[in-house]
Amino acid sequence: MREVKTLGLLGTGVIGGGWAARALHFGIDVIAADVKPEMQEWIRGAVANAEPALARLTFAPLPPKGKLTFTTDLDAMAAQADFIQENIPEQLPLKQRILAQVSRHAPADVIIASSTSGLMPTDLQRDMVAPERFCVAHPFNPVYLLPLVEIVGGEKTSAATIEASKRFFTYIGMHALHVRREVPGHLTDRLQEALWREILHMVNDGVATTGELDDSIIYGPGLRWAAMGTNLIYHLAGGESGMRHMLAQFGPCLKWPWTKLEAPELSEQLIDRMVEGTQAQAAGRSIREIERLRDDYLVAIQQVLRNFNIGAGATLKNLETRLYTDASLEHTYDGVKPELDGPLRLVSTEVRPEWIDYNGHMTDSRYMQVFGDAMDAMYRRIGVDEDYRASGHMFYTVESHISYLTEARVNEPIYVTTQMLGLDQKRLHVFHRLLRERDNELVAACEQMHLHVDTHAHKAALIRPEVFSKLEALRATHAALPAPNQAGRHIGMPAH
Amino acid sequence: MREVKTLGLLGTGVIGGGWAARALHFGIDVIAADVKPEMQEWIRGAVANAEPALARLTFAPLPPKGKLTFTTDLDAMAAQADFIQENIPEQLPLKQRILAQVSRHAPADVIIASSTSGLMPTDLQRDMVAPERFCVAHPFNPVYLLPLVEIVGGEKTSAATIEASKRFFTYIGMHALHVRREVPGHLTDRLQEALWREILHMVNDGVATTGELDDSIIYGPGLRWAAMGTNLIYHLAGGESGMRHMLAQFGPCLKWPWTKLEAPELSEQLIDRMVEGTQAQAAGRSIREIERLRDDYLVAIQQVLRNFNIGAGATLKNLETRLYTDASLEHTYDGVKPELDGPLRLVSTEVRPEWIDYNGHMTDSRYMQVFGDAMDAMYRRIGVDEDYRASGHMFYTVESHISYLTEARVNEPIYVTTQMLGLDQKRLHVFHRLLRERDNELVAACEQMHLHVDTHAHKAALIRPEVFSKLEALRATHAALPAPNQAGRHIGMPAH
Repeated sequence: MREVKTLGLLGTGVIGGGWAARALHFGIDVIAADVKPEMQEWIRGAVANAEPALARLTFAPLPPKGKLTFTTDLDAMAAQADFIQENIPEQLPLKQRILAQVSRHAPADVIIASSTSGLMPTDLQRDMVAPERFCVAHPFNPVYLLPLVEIVGGEKTSAATIEASKRFFTYIGMHALHVRREVPGHLTDRLQEALWREILHMVNDGVATTGELDDSIIYGPGLRWAAMGTNLIYHLAGGESGMRHMLAQFGPCLKWPWTKLEAPELSEQLIDRMVEGTQAQAAGRSIREIERLRDDYLVAIQQVLRNFNIGAGATLKNLETRLYTDASLEHTYDGVKPELDGPLRLVSTEVRPEWIDYNGHMTDSRYMQVFGDAMDAMYRRIGVDEDYRASGHMFYTVESHISYLTEARVNEPIYVTTQMLGLDQKRLHVFHRLLRERDNELVAACEQMHLHVDTHAHKAALIRPEVFSKLEALRATHAALPAPNQAGRHIGMPAH
Repeated sequence: MREVKTLGLLGTGVIGGGWAARALHFGIDVIAADVKPEMQEWIRGAVANAEPALARLTFAPLPPKGKLTFTTDLDAMAAQADFIQENIPEQLPLKQRILAQVSRHAPADVIIASSTSGLMPTDLQRDMVAPERFCVAHPFNPVYLLPLVEIVGGEKTSAATIEASKRFFTYIGMHALHVRREVPGHLTDRLQEALWREILHMVNDGVATTGELDDSIIYGPGLRWAAMGTNLIYHLAGGESGMRHMLAQFGPCLKWPWTKLEAPELSEQLIDRMVEGTQAQAAGRSIREIERLRDDYLVAIQQVLRNFNIGAGATLKNLETRLYTDASLEHTYDGVKPELDGPLRLVSTEVRPEWIDYNGHMTDSRYMQVFGDAMDAMYRRIGVDEDYRASGHMFYTVESHISYLTEARVNEPIYVTTQMLGLDQKRLHVFHRLLRERDNELVAACEQMHLHVDTHAHKAALIRPEVFSKLEALRATHAALPAPNQAGRHIGMPAH
């Protein structure tokens, strides 16, 4: 199978658009083919829409983005692509016909994969040329963010096709799950569908609304399912004897009317398979060890959801509001407005889990991000806003000097203060301190010089009067403050 | 109903221990009652085990922890508690008998709630004194971290009991979901059970292992379910016309053998209920808006899981390892090994669109990110890798000085070179240049001092010999290079 530099897409709906965004982001060229010419604009929109989220997924260095081209000629696409992903409507005869057609134009070492949610690969590959290079590769919405792709081979699929597909999907950041037996719905959609049909029954029977049923998942099992599945979770529920104990204890429930789905007989063979399977998953880890991991991610996920005020994150946020109110801390900080007699307090935040590097510390670039947030807040305060920028003026950072002094731990509340050290008609010299909320300890300091520029002329320019007067007032106030220890430093080896 | 200062626990298994840990953490005293005296030690262990995770859940100020006492006398507990939570084995006659007994000793304004997974409140309250103060309050493992609690009233339960229960559980950080109709399994366990029985069928039929089935959730739908349920997610899948379109498109699948659970008839009434329900959930937000929220939390959760190297976080981590390796370009660049006669060339990338700020320029923190990438690449080259870190040693950045010299445009290919300025037994002094590929123009420069530390002792330590020798060789080579213009600078106003 060939190296994939160009991905061919057959069909450009939501799934096709998701594939395009993901592949392009990781440096793969994409030829999108759709018989409807209007889909060209559509897929470009879908890619643009996916980009903001994808852009934040990783800060690791990325190769140049791939190029997107569009054609209405499916056969031309097939002749140029190194890997073809089909995403046309979920109708077996249609898929069979188009796959067969495309297979006559794609060289035999080009894999052709189908995004089908539930059709069987043996049926889909029936009329293809070189059917051994066909497999199902079923992704999940949003394809550009969710890593799962189910890989299913048909009767004629070669092992080399499965392996090469897994390699390609891994390359573009996915988790390729090889489904070893063809069944309608593969694995994931069978599980999702059971849950979905139970929901439909409950709504149909008037037991609950869709919102209540969603809540019954997102505040509870859904949080667990973000990183551990039902089987491993139930293994934990069994205590030190794991799944075997769990099945002994809850086995009788399988006869109870807890769902409209009848359970299979809990035979010795089934019990053995469940126990062996979960023991393999535990991989020698004790129940306590897996519990600790579960607890760690449950805490971290709730904290991260708090930033979006959604689900369990909203619950946590409400709890914290109550706790802060109860502790009535509102009046104990900053009894005096800090801008009257001290540095401006411009940013209050906390060290977010995603800011932490492999040392367990806040990444260097994140310090700069927080100092940048402080500078933005300062600009807003002095009236350097959208209108000011639109008028063709702006401050650029010309120099920054950061001193990293102590550690900031994950979730640590922090804040930034900003002190003006100097001002002339074109320059602004500031000093930021990043401090820990709990003990006001200085975590890092950042000295900066900013230059005022005319953005049309691309050169330094006088600060405009309405902003200058505010900066002047601030400088006059801050002139009384002591000079920071970390200001005016240069970097060099100490004398030995 | 009275204010809850003391929670009485009836039964002290995993669920009872979880309740104890949560209540104590948020300042509620707990009297744990169990007829087995050995459970005293057990529950103290369970509380201690829960504490590390609970302690990280929020940094908001907490009241003093509650006090835990233990008794084997259920009636004595009942006479002292302000709220009683029952957690004894899931057998109806046993629960009925104990609940009736305890209700004779607890004043009538003390709520008695059952943690039952699926028994019906009307059955449980049958023999109680003052049955109107009874309800089901069903939590989820780990009770001390998952916010969900299902509140279900029986025929005799008062509205005041439901309201007061919700208030109490909210106080201890939970999301109280009122289940308006009694059904076996309430809401959550019905959905979980449908999925669980489908898993048992698949394992029974030899389709997949427990691990494969767990993977089919955690890399895909499980990530979504952490904050949005199936209904809202399917509403999104329907595009701008939401759930109605989704049901039209995927309705036929309900007849397909995608699960062993038969779906109800998709009547007009059911469709209307599904549409009305999800429209209420959308609460006026557009599909695009909800999609953006979904994308935001999916990104954040994957980043947070990366810290635990689990599920989708492990996938992301592997991807990043590959990206860093590809970007370090150790052997591919320029034919000549650059380290022989000049600064190391460590990173080649391009200015990504997401790095651009409102001025149309690369954001300050992104420069730092690229310089950080260069430093990481240098560390890998000299053997400062996972193993080195695992041995308890690492370099920390102590100071950075960035000079921003010219603009880098979006999509501009750029690269970074790194020159060693100095080295002693604990310190590494380096100078990075960020250059444009097209004209080798210097875009920015970053001088840094790195300190070698013993990460266990939290103090500076000698660079280990195998790494020091490589750095020495590099310093010897770089000693011949001219000192950079931007090195040794401090920030200050020019003389006027």
